[in-house]
Order: sequence, then C-alpha cells, then structure tokens
Amino acid sequence: MTYCVAMSLDAGMLFASDSRTNAGVDQVSRFSKMRTFVQPGERVVVVLSSGNLSFTQNAINILEQRARAPDVPLTLWNATSLFEVARLFGDALRDVKARDGPYLAQSNIDAGANFLVGGQIRGEAPRLFNVYSEGNFIEATDETCYFQSGETKYGKPIIDRVIKRESTLIDATKCTMVSFDSTMRSNISVGLPIDLLVYETDALDIKMQRRIEETDPYYLMVHSEWGEGLRRVFAQLPNPDWT
Amino acid sequence: MTYCVAMSLDAGMLFASDSRTNAGVDQVSRFSKMRTFVQPGERVVVVLSSGNLSFTQNAINILEQRARAPDVPLTLWNATSLFEVARLFGDALRDVKARDGPYLAQSNIDAGANFLVGGQIRGEAPRLFNVYSEGNFIEATDETCYFQSGETKYGKPIIDRVIKRESTLIDATKCTMVSFDSTMRSNISVGLPIDLLVYETDALDIKMQRRIEETDPYYLMVHSEWGEGLRRVFAQLPNPDWT
Repeated sequence: MTYCVAMSLDAGMLFASDSRTNAGVDQVSRFSKMRTFVQPGERVVVVLSSGNLSFTQNAINILEQRARAPDVPLTLWNATSLFEVARLFGDALRDVKARDGPYLAQSNIDAGANFLVGGQIRGEAPRLFNVYSEGNFIEATDETCYFQSGETKYGKPIIDRVIKRESTLIDATKCTMVSFDSTMRSNISVGLPIDLLVYETDALDIKMQRRIEETDPYYLMVHSEWGEGLRRVFAQLPNPDWT
Repeated sequence: MTYCVAMSLDAGMLFASDSRTNAGVDQVSRFSKMRTFVQPGERVVVVLSSGNLSFTQNAINILEQRARAPDVPLTLWNATSLFEVARLFGDALRDVKARDGPYLAQSNIDAGANFLVGGQIRGEAPRLFNVYSEGNFIEATDETCYFQSGETKYGKPIIDRVIKRESTLIDATKCTMVSFDSTMRSNISVGLPIDLLVYETDALDIKMQRRIEETDPYYLMVHSEWGEGLRRVFAQLPNPDWT
C-alpha cells in the first residue's frame, strides 16, 4: 500500500508520501512516490502517486515523453494553469488504462491508480487536485484543504483535528509526521522513508524537500513523544462511574 | 456502516457497537447491533453484528428459532463451549447466504456480514471469536486480544497504543470511548448511541450494560477532553528545524 498527503494552506503547500511498494508480501520494495516538475520563477508541479505502480509510472513516462516531443501542443512545461496540468495527468492515466487495463482485468489485477497533483504556475494561486483512477478530478477548497490517498484512515483523525486553511507550514509538517506515525503504527504496508516537500506560496521554487529515514532524529522524537503524550492524556481522562 | 469493538482481557471482556445503519444516504436508521444470550451462572454470550443487516438479523432469528425447536440437538442454550457457539453463528450465516445470496448477487448487492461473538460458558475461560462472512472464524489470543469490525481504521491507533491483555476494564472502557470518538469525528456513517457491555471474568452474568446517547455527560467529556489533550500534546511537540 501507500500513504500520501497533500495540503493546500494559505501559507503554502505540503506534500508527503511513504515509499513502500508491495506486490504480495514477498515483493516489498522502495519506490519514491513523489515527482516534481520545476521551472524556477515559472512553475512548480508536485505529484504524489498511489495505486498500481505500473500505471502511475507509465502515465508519468507518457507525460515526460510528450513534453519532449516537438509536436505536442500542451505539456507540463507550457500549461498555463494547474487545471490543465491535472487534465494532463488524468488523460495520461486514461491512456495507460486503455492500453494495459484489459490485460490486467484478465488476471483480476486491480488497475486502480491515482495522483495528487499540486503546485503553482505563475499568474495563479497555488492549487491542489485529486486525480482519480478514471481520470476525472476534484480540487481542494478552503473548507477541504487537504487530500489523502492510499491507506488514509489511520492518519486522518489528527489532520481533521489540527489542520485548517490558516495553519502554519510548521504545524502542517508536525501534523504530517504524526499522521504517518499513526498510520505506520497500525498498518505494516506503509513504511519509511517519507518524502516530504514544503512549498511556500508564490516562491515558484522548491526550498524544502527531504527524505525522512528510519534514523531521522526528528521523526524518532515525534514517534516517542506523541505516543507518550497520548498515553498521558489517556491516563488523565477521568474514569467513567458506570460500574 | 458500523463500528464494533470487542476486547478479551484478563479482567474480563468489553463489547461496544454503534447503532447507525444506512442503505444509501437517505435511509439512515438506528438498529442496535448488540445481542445477548444469558443464563445467569451458566452462560453469557454477546454478539456484535456488522455488514448486511438482513443477513445478520436473519442469522440471529434462525438461531433463536432453532433454540426453541424441540428437535435441534445443539443450540445457543446447551452448547458446552464458546467454540461451538461461534460455529452456530457461522453456520447460520451460511444458511442465510445460501438462501438470499444469489438474489442479492443479481442486484450486485454486497452480501458481506460478520459477527464478533464472545462471552463465557461455565467450565471455560472467557473467549472471543471473529466470525467472517463465509462462516469460518478465528479466536482472540493473548497477543491479539481485541477484534474490530466495520469502519475499523480510524479508531485502531488508540487501541494499539493503550490496550494490553492486562489492561483494566476501566481503561478498556475509556479507550473504547476515545476510539469511537475518533471514528465518528472522521466518518459520518458511524453514529451515536453506542451500546456498551462490560463483562467481568467468571461473573457468568451481565452487570454493566448501557446505551450511551448523544447527551451522555461522560461521552461529551471524553469528546472534548481528548480533543483538547491531543491539541495540547501537538502544540508541545518541538518544531522541526528543516527550513
């Protein structure tokens, strides 16, 4: 499985993805699920992939190939809005599905795949899209300012409690670490390292991107402090008098 | 959807279930998902249902009917082990599925249904079983002392962090309230009231069973204190110095 989170806040955007991929329990590998397309001062596009790895890899390859071809009018590099970019990702997914889907169906293999696509193109505010397996997509709003994909449920309650459109990027980063920690505590199919990228509104460049490994001191601190803190809050909750 | 939890601890057992049932968004109703079969001093059987309501209701009806019939050798009331009881529930599910399954399949309706069955029969220790939709089942152990069914993921991290076989029934109750609160915060298909039953090992009777409504002061306290506590722990987490 996979766990990806993307948030679109007033201060900027946050993207995070785990890097565990498995086909059955004995083919567990590491694949980064984050890709970036950056023209400093012009555009920053970040994409998080989840679902069938061959579908998402192929779709991104198609987009890169088209961006290099001289005769393709609209590409990742000249699209003038994130909306157009989201469409390109949706179209590429449909192309892969049209080519490979029927063969996977013959073997009852899940052909689900999706992208969280966000960033900023000069002239627009930052935008975030959730591109579904069928190629259609939705956009984050002020009320719903984050998307998750993959193994989303374990790590959702903390985001729901803490993150608002006005949250700082520091709080978003902390919250994301806690959300991943909760997910990895309860689900073995999501694993470190985490790819993390924080984008500041109007920067039109990436200033903070890092891979958080098993030995990262901040992650280890969050892991133990959060667990301790939860147990402390739990111990302080009054007992029911229902006996 | 549904959320059910059952725990088998040294001190006793805990059962809890929400009571929201829906077939689409405009047919939301309340149905208790907890049933008890008690012969004081002899047996306590508690069952939590999830999945297709017609299947679980029908299966329980079949078991009750058989328990009244003079010619059925093995029933809920004379089974000498919880293992036999779990088998009876599994068999009843299979009977309903054999009768109704093909008709539901014609309309592509999900025929999944399962039971968490636990309790104690005199002469045995308390036992807890998870009876799957296919009628097969597994038993809780020292290492895995709880089962969930339905919308399980949001409320799993807190149980994983807090509950051990040696936990007190008070802590199990508190933890269950937190687990339901996290689930209901993130998923609208799980709703109050909660049916809660706490069984003390060797009591062979039910001494604590209650329905927790929207206005229950303890639940409301847990709801606000837990949220506050989480935000406090979150605020106290040091910031990353990754910028």
